[in-house]
Amino acid sequence: MVETMRWENGKLVLLDQTKLPLKVAWVSCNTYQRVGKAIQKLEVRGAPAIGAAAAFAMVLAWRQIAEKQKESVPVQADDTFVTDTKLQTYAAMLLGKDFGDKSNEKSIQPALAKLLKKFAVARTKLDASRPTAVNLSWATKVMYDAACHMAEAGLDATQIDSELEALAIKIYEQDIAKNKKMGEYGAEVVPQNAVILTHCNAGALATCGWGTALGVIRSAHEQGKVKMVYSDETRPLLQGSRLTAWELMEDNIPVTTITDNMAAWSMKTKGINIVITGADRIAANGDTANKIGTYGVALAAKAHGIPFYIAAPASTFDFSIKSGEEIPIEERNAKEVRSFQGAVSAPQDVNVFNPAFDVTPAKLIAGIITEYGVLRPPFKKAIKELKTKVHKEELFAWKA
Amino acid sequence: MVETMRWENGKLVLLDQTKLPLKVAWVSCNTYQRVGKAIQKLEVRGAPAIGAAAAFAMVLAWRQIAEKQKESVPVQADDTFVTDTKLQTYAAMLLGKDFGDKSNEKSIQPALAKLLKKFAVARTKLDASRPTAVNLSWATKVMYDAACHMAEAGLDATQIDSELEALAIKIYEQDIAKNKKMGEYGAEVVPQNAVILTHCNAGALATCGWGTALGVIRSAHEQGKVKMVYSDETRPLLQGSRLTAWELMEDNIPVTTITDNMAAWSMKTKGINIVITGADRIAANGDTANKIGTYGVALAAKAHGIPFYIAAPASTFDFSIKSGEEIPIEERNAKEVRSFQGAVSAPQDVNVFNPAFDVTPAKLIAGIITEYGVLRPPFKKAIKELKTKVHKEELFAWKA
Repeated sequence: MVETMRWENGKLVLLDQTKLPLKVAWVSCNTYQRVGKAIQKLEVRGAPAIGAAAAFAMVLAWRQIAEKQKESVPVQADDTFVTDTKLQTYAAMLLGKDFGDKSNEKSIQPALAKLLKKFAVARTKLDASRPTAVNLSWATKVMYDAACHMAEAGLDATQIDSELEALAIKIYEQDIAKNKKMGEYGAEVVPQNAVILTHCNAGALATCGWGTALGVIRSAHEQGKVKMVYSDETRPLLQGSRLTAWELMEDNIPVTTITDNMAAWSMKTKGINIVITGADRIAANGDTANKIGTYGVALAAKAHGIPFYIAAPASTFDFSIKSGEEIPIEERNAKEVRSFQGAVSAPQDVNVFNPAFDVTPAKLIAGIITEYGVLRPPFKKAIKELKTKVHKEELFAWKA
Repeated sequence: MVETMRWENGKLVLLDQTKLPLKVAWVSCNTYQRVGKAIQKLEVRGAPAIGAAAAFAMVLAWRQIAEKQKESVPVQADDTFVTDTKLQTYAAMLLGKDFGDKSNEKSIQPALAKLLKKFAVARTKLDASRPTAVNLSWATKVMYDAACHMAEAGLDATQIDSELEALAIKIYEQDIAKNKKMGEYGAEVVPQNAVILTHCNAGALATCGWGTALGVIRSAHEQGKVKMVYSDETRPLLQGSRLTAWELMEDNIPVTTITDNMAAWSMKTKGINIVITGADRIAANGDTANKIGTYGVALAAKAHGIPFYIAAPASTFDFSIKSGEEIPIEERNAKEVRSFQGAVSAPQDVNVFNPAFDVTPAKLIAGIITEYGVLRPPFKKAIKELKTKVHKEELFAWKA
């Protein structure tokens, strides 16, 4: 099975996705700064994968700071620390432990307070490595809040170190567990002899393993249902041809790469009977932002009567916005459209429109596959029900 | 104005389209073999441009053969020549001359018969440089038939040389005249403040000048109607970003390059109010084969209520086939999809589907702009009427 990252002897080993599909190379990170660099350079990419990598980076940060502090001069008396959060329940739930809340009983030791302060700085630095990635700031927040809470609960630096490591592993494992759950539910909607079209990479490579849209395809493949997967190359950054094709081939799932403009004709001539893509953000009415091109695929699917599914964990839902019109669409550098990996494809001064995402209206979507089951229209009602099932700290604080 | 080729002092000077948009370079051809190589290497491309280049190549061929024959040993008595065609009327019409038909009165001189035989060989060699290009074999046939007819009519090699040159120039000029006519008719359907989407390159670069779809856009631009042209990059060979963007910029027509998968989202968010593309082959019911991706664009236009127009000369119509289902779709080399201008973009052993064209059903088309006017649905009737207006020798002998 395709692996995105490994936590190995206190190091985070990442599959370098910038080298794919030419080379399978691994990046060994033993500092949180190196993980930050990997996130920035897209060596690790995909929302859930970035989240887990950031959680491990926080473990590395804790260790680096604690190690350095041992060597330094004694702490000053004014090294006090005040936590500003009570978001401790999610970490405790993940770890299956109750640390208790003793924040009013005793104060944190100056040495630990100093460590936490530096830990906050490390968190900020990590967040800056990719500011728009909500999973990144979510994961660093969970780790940071957990450390504060444990300190308040009386754990020392070494105990916290060990709990943080356990927590990062849990975040990693939980992502895979969610994907497997999504795969289970999703495989039920995949027909026998499925000829599937997918867009971009919502695969093992974008997650800690298994994948969301590709996780559903993997599960369906295990059940012998998959005849062929058509994978859009997904310009401008070609995640489809570079990553999706590679990871499906690694797992011996039959895949055919096409350029994006071949999707409609493939639907017409190749017997495609289901479309499954991932999602970047889903509004309360089911409107879904995903990689640019998804909307065109959904329109073509509709015209051919092919059901169009989204596969995404509950954390992708932004219950605070009513419709897709409120989702801001990031525009990226024009260079991406004018070239690919250094190969020039257009006049270098040509005007370019380069939206990173588009919004597929809910009416084009047959179902949204989550780890809680498959949501069906009317989505407004289904998403409202989903909200009641999700642990609130598991959700991201979406920023406009 | 963008120029594709020039006939200059007995040489064919071609704009090297493989170097665009990085470099404006010209290829000077003084042999027919060099023109054949240019066609093969796609230095010259686009159906009408290939046709005109081939006509000039036939002039070069005639001169090369005649020149060589002067130097060689006297011809043998058995050098006889029998023409197998009566298709002389089109050349005569283009040249505005009546050579008369004297084929039954006198036989062709052995030296001229020998020249014609070698001319036939040159024609076959040129045809082989791009076997699927119907304009190529059409142009070489018109030139060859004209030479045979002139020989029968009693013209000598030098006279034929001069008439062939005049004929090639006419073929070239006639293409531009047709495009201008198409532009005139087409500009009428373009709205004020037009935001136009186009696909591939149906421009001056694909023709002898002015262009078909881009010819319509040029004419509309002259009338001050064009606000912006969105140009799909058109994977895999990127004719949109390499050629369309370049030629519109050369003529100061506002253009924005997008990747193919941004077309639908651009329609939704950028106020696109008309789509105009070229065509490779149109069936008797209006079904239109054009560059891969056109079908998806037409579906998206339909979903947004945007009128979708085809611009193509009458020679693009294949009256012999009832519908698009009879149009064979060429599949090209997988390497085109696995890489991007030489940069690797997919696993080199991944399965690929690479159709060169797709078929847009007539029901998605608002109108077909020709040099005879704009055809409107029902197309079956409109195309039947068109057929009566077209000179039969002007039409290509389409091959399945």
